[in-house]
Amino acid sequence: MIALKESDLRKDVAKLLIVRASGHALDSQRQYPKWELKNCDLKRLLKEGIGGVILFGGTTIELEQRTKTLRAWAEKPLFLCADVEEGLGQRFQGGTWLAPPLAVAQIHRKDPEKAIALAEKYGNCIGSQARLCGLNWVLAPVCDVNINPKNPVINLRAWGEDPLTVSELTCAFNKGLSAQGVLTCAKHFPGHGDTSVDSHLELPTINHDLQRLEEVEFVPFKAIIASGVDTVMSAHVLFPNIDPNQPASLSSKTITKLLRDEIGFDGLLVTDALVMEAIHNFYNDADAAVMAFAAGADLLMMPADPDEAIDAICKALLMGRIPMQRLQETLHRRKKALAKVEGLNPSLFSQEEKMDSLLIECRQDRVLAEDLIRNSMEIHHHVPPGDLSSDNNLVRVDGVLPCPFLNNLSPAVCLPEEAGYRTTLCHEMGIPLWRDDLYEPLVLDRFQGGAFFLQLFVRGNPFRGSLFEKEPWLATIRQLQGLKRLAGLVVYGSPYLWNELNEVLDSTIPSAYSPGQMHEAQIQVLSSLFHFYEAPDFKAHTIHQFTD
Amino acid sequence: MIALKESDLRKDVAKLLIVRASGHALDSQRQYPKWELKNCDLKRLLKEGIGGVILFGGTTIELEQRTKTLRAWAEKPLFLCADVEEGLGQRFQGGTWLAPPLAVAQIHRKDPEKAIALAEKYGNCIGSQARLCGLNWVLAPVCDVNINPKNPVINLRAWGEDPLTVSELTCAFNKGLSAQGVLTCAKHFPGHGDTSVDSHLELPTINHDLQRLEEVEFVPFKAIIASGVDTVMSAHVLFPNIDPNQPASLSSKTITKLLRDEIGFDGLLVTDALVMEAIHNFYNDADAAVMAFAAGADLLMMPADPDEAIDAICKALLMGRIPMQRLQETLHRRKKALAKVEGLNPSLFSQEEKMDSLLIECRQDRVLAEDLIRNSMEIHHHVPPGDLSSDNNLVRVDGVLPCPFLNNLSPAVCLPEEAGYRTTLCHEMGIPLWRDDLYEPLVLDRFQGGAFFLQLFVRGNPFRGSLFEKEPWLATIRQLQGLKRLAGLVVYGSPYLWNELNEVLDSTIPSAYSPGQMHEAQIQVLSSLFHFYEAPDFKAHTIHQFTD
Repeated sequence: MIALKESDLRKDVAKLLIVRASGHALDSQRQYPKWELKNCDLKRLLKEGIGGVILFGGTTIELEQRTKTLRAWAEKPLFLCADVEEGLGQRFQGGTWLAPPLAVAQIHRKDPEKAIALAEKYGNCIGSQARLCGLNWVLAPVCDVNINPKNPVINLRAWGEDPLTVSELTCAFNKGLSAQGVLTCAKHFPGHGDTSVDSHLELPTINHDLQRLEEVEFVPFKAIIASGVDTVMSAHVLFPNIDPNQPASLSSKTITKLLRDEIGFDGLLVTDALVMEAIHNFYNDADAAVMAFAAGADLLMMPADPDEAIDAICKALLMGRIPMQRLQETLHRRKKALAKVEGLNPSLFSQEEKMDSLLIECRQDRVLAEDLIRNSMEIHHHVPPGDLSSDNNLVRVDGVLPCPFLNNLSPAVCLPEEAGYRTTLCHEMGIPLWRDDLYEPLVLDRFQGGAFFLQLFVRGNPFRGSLFEKEPWLATIRQLQGLKRLAGLVVYGSPYLWNELNEVLDSTIPSAYSPGQMHEAQIQVLSSLFHFYEAPDFKAHTIHQFTD
Repeated sequence: MIALKESDLRKDVAKLLIVRASGHALDSQRQYPKWELKNCDLKRLLKEGIGGVILFGGTTIELEQRTKTLRAWAEKPLFLCADVEEGLGQRFQGGTWLAPPLAVAQIHRKDPEKAIALAEKYGNCIGSQARLCGLNWVLAPVCDVNINPKNPVINLRAWGEDPLTVSELTCAFNKGLSAQGVLTCAKHFPGHGDTSVDSHLELPTINHDLQRLEEVEFVPFKAIIASGVDTVMSAHVLFPNIDPNQPASLSSKTITKLLRDEIGFDGLLVTDALVMEAIHNFYNDADAAVMAFAAGADLLMMPADPDEAIDAICKALLMGRIPMQRLQETLHRRKKALAKVEGLNPSLFSQEEKMDSLLIECRQDRVLAEDLIRNSMEIHHHVPPGDLSSDNNLVRVDGVLPCPFLNNLSPAVCLPEEAGYRTTLCHEMGIPLWRDDLYEPLVLDRFQGGAFFLQLFVRGNPFRGSLFEKEPWLATIRQLQGLKRLAGLVVYGSPYLWNELNEVLDSTIPSAYSPGQMHEAQIQVLSSLFHFYEAPDFKAHTIHQFTD
């Protein structure tokens, strides 16, 4: 009798877990085999009742197949989610990749109504593509107020730098996303915007008092909860003035007292990934899962060992350390959320649609992607035509194995080469560019003679910390200007780096900024900067490759 | 009446053309938009009767969907082919990527029977995966005898360096491939093995007299034709002693007189890609198509402008410059070949198979991939364990945007890093490694102190010419040995470079060679070289990521 009960309990507890899988079909295709379950484990866990899967990597065509397979393995409703804050194309090739949310915030400064309309379309674009690929839950929007320009992990993912902008834009986004029938997620409660360390690597602390948190961090969360967000994700951040002992994601004071009782949120609360070092460094895996659940979390994202997490929670429930009522509450919320997405048709495309290659991206998605870039880029001066045959096109990226926005035929490589530049690609694994000299850091003899056209792809990226902050770009700009060897500058990504460099930039230097890094951003920035469309001496075919 | 006839003629002529498309579904996903047709053009041409499509890029899951779509667009039987000489995984992620054919030739030297058995399995593996993905024609085997070690385009793609080995192995390969029901292709007639320029870039000339050609180049083609190959591909190579005026692919003396009349081949003759510079540089596109057809070619691969090619051939037929009988012959051969593959079931996987992730690669395919690497690699000495914290892992590749065999988690990067090395990735777009010094070419101050573990990924690659021949690796080896700073050497790819470097290599230096470059080659070489399995001080998880 007890045994039977225990096996039923195990099945119910399994429903709390969201595990990670590759969007690719084959084990050999996994990009991160350390974190992505093998198919045999995935299949077993789904049979045992695991509550959901978060997917990373692959193409939209593969994702569609993959979600079908996962549904069939599970044999009952489950959550299928992805971290597609910037469009399906951010994670799944073939989907639309939009300029990051902070681009919309920049538009909001000049034209709030336009920005709000764009944010709603942004959500709608993601929702429609997610649904077509068989997902039923989108882990967006980020509701953190990006107070700290040095924030290595939120940064361009935020919808603004002040609580009002973030509230307006995330509510609009949420409206557009919800309209497609998928579940939405406000993250990272109670706010991850004022941190300077990456919670993937360490546990950040935010020391603000409650009054400040009420005035800034909580504002967008309250707004979006009031306007109807389905789920909230908790942050792995320590707020000593809310709970001096536990990070938000493991803190009953934060999740239950603040979020549930005071703010009144009654949807699902999911933790941020439990494998992140902010938690993993300090807590035994099973303990972290039990603590999060005990604190009030409904869903546990990516526990390091799913079987261990289930066992530990079952034990805590059976021993009465966590009341059974906690489980009932959670299962009730889960059922309600799944009921809401029951109507989504997972067998998406008709064969007809497939044949017409309408597939994932529709015409208005492409228009939106282009509009966002056009409205958020800045162009200062144009590159004069001339003989540039010995000039350097220096392209800086974080990494190249692989680089999601750059290939041999990318505009950032091809277009300057058409204009006579020679590309040098600089990245973490390359030969260093610099020597230890505060004023003349760039080692010039590592390049050919002539001027430098700099293209800096820089943004805070999870896991990479603030890699670029160690790079002396400011001094390099000064050095090249002093030598009259700066031909131009483009920053793709961080508005903070752009502002910093722009302050020392000679006003005659051709320069540009775009918050987006993808091909669409490169093509728009460079066409405009080089006047490609007007200059008949640039080969038209190069540009047509990208524009048609 | 004439109009009706002309439109029928156009449809028949269209059947001669093979056009190129991406394996991805969306126009925006094309890797080479210059060469890969947009879906609207592809759809129109297929409706107009285009005879076949050659596919490049994407994953096997996408390819399966793509071939279904193309069949539906065409509404009648057509050729669906790919250049998967080294396995589906060479072009389509998710398929098996096998060590290059020359690896089997190396095994043949020691154990001919084993090599012949491997070659048959090799063909079978490709045939079964091609069929599952919906292809009906595999453009392999390469029957060229790789006489010239400096051959930039054949090289490791060849099944040997002497006519007998090539004959035995390609016949065995052809048998294994045919057994899966797909069409096979012997290329590049009458032989591309003794060239030193890349026909993708220039027109090569082979000046040998007929006696020598009979003794070497023709041998494997005669053998494979006798044993039953379905199609032959002609080379863009000038053989003055066969035809002093036209390259083989446009030469009636070569295709009709030599191949048809003398050798007696009665299957389909397809040209190599007509967009290649060897042809494109010298002939107007329409002329090249007409000349190839007039010379006796049945199928025209990748004409630069399909509509122009059709028009020009129609005109030549209507004006009597090419007899109508030429077209009848070709259509007859085409019908026969398509009838042979009619039985291949394009609706491949059952949903059940998909769910079990059996998909494309079966167990014996994986075993074959592992066997080929194991049997063809060489290991000289092992790397002694020690404190290597300041040593350099210098990885040389042709290009990184993208690099098909390397990512952040590849064994060639991760395993040496586990052992304390720091990776520097060197490629065409990076900061140069060398200065102009014959004896000490490597600029040491561009690296950190300590020794160098060199991993050279080098093989002739189409379009890249002999890039690596300009790189002074021999002098670098001598320089580093002189300084006692050479920690080890691995060559992945070219046996010729390996032999050359090996001659100056101090016999105590740990070194290894593998003809393959993919993960499987990296893991086997490095596990063995570093004794990873035996040494408990290396973290087991790293290696398990790749082996399980």
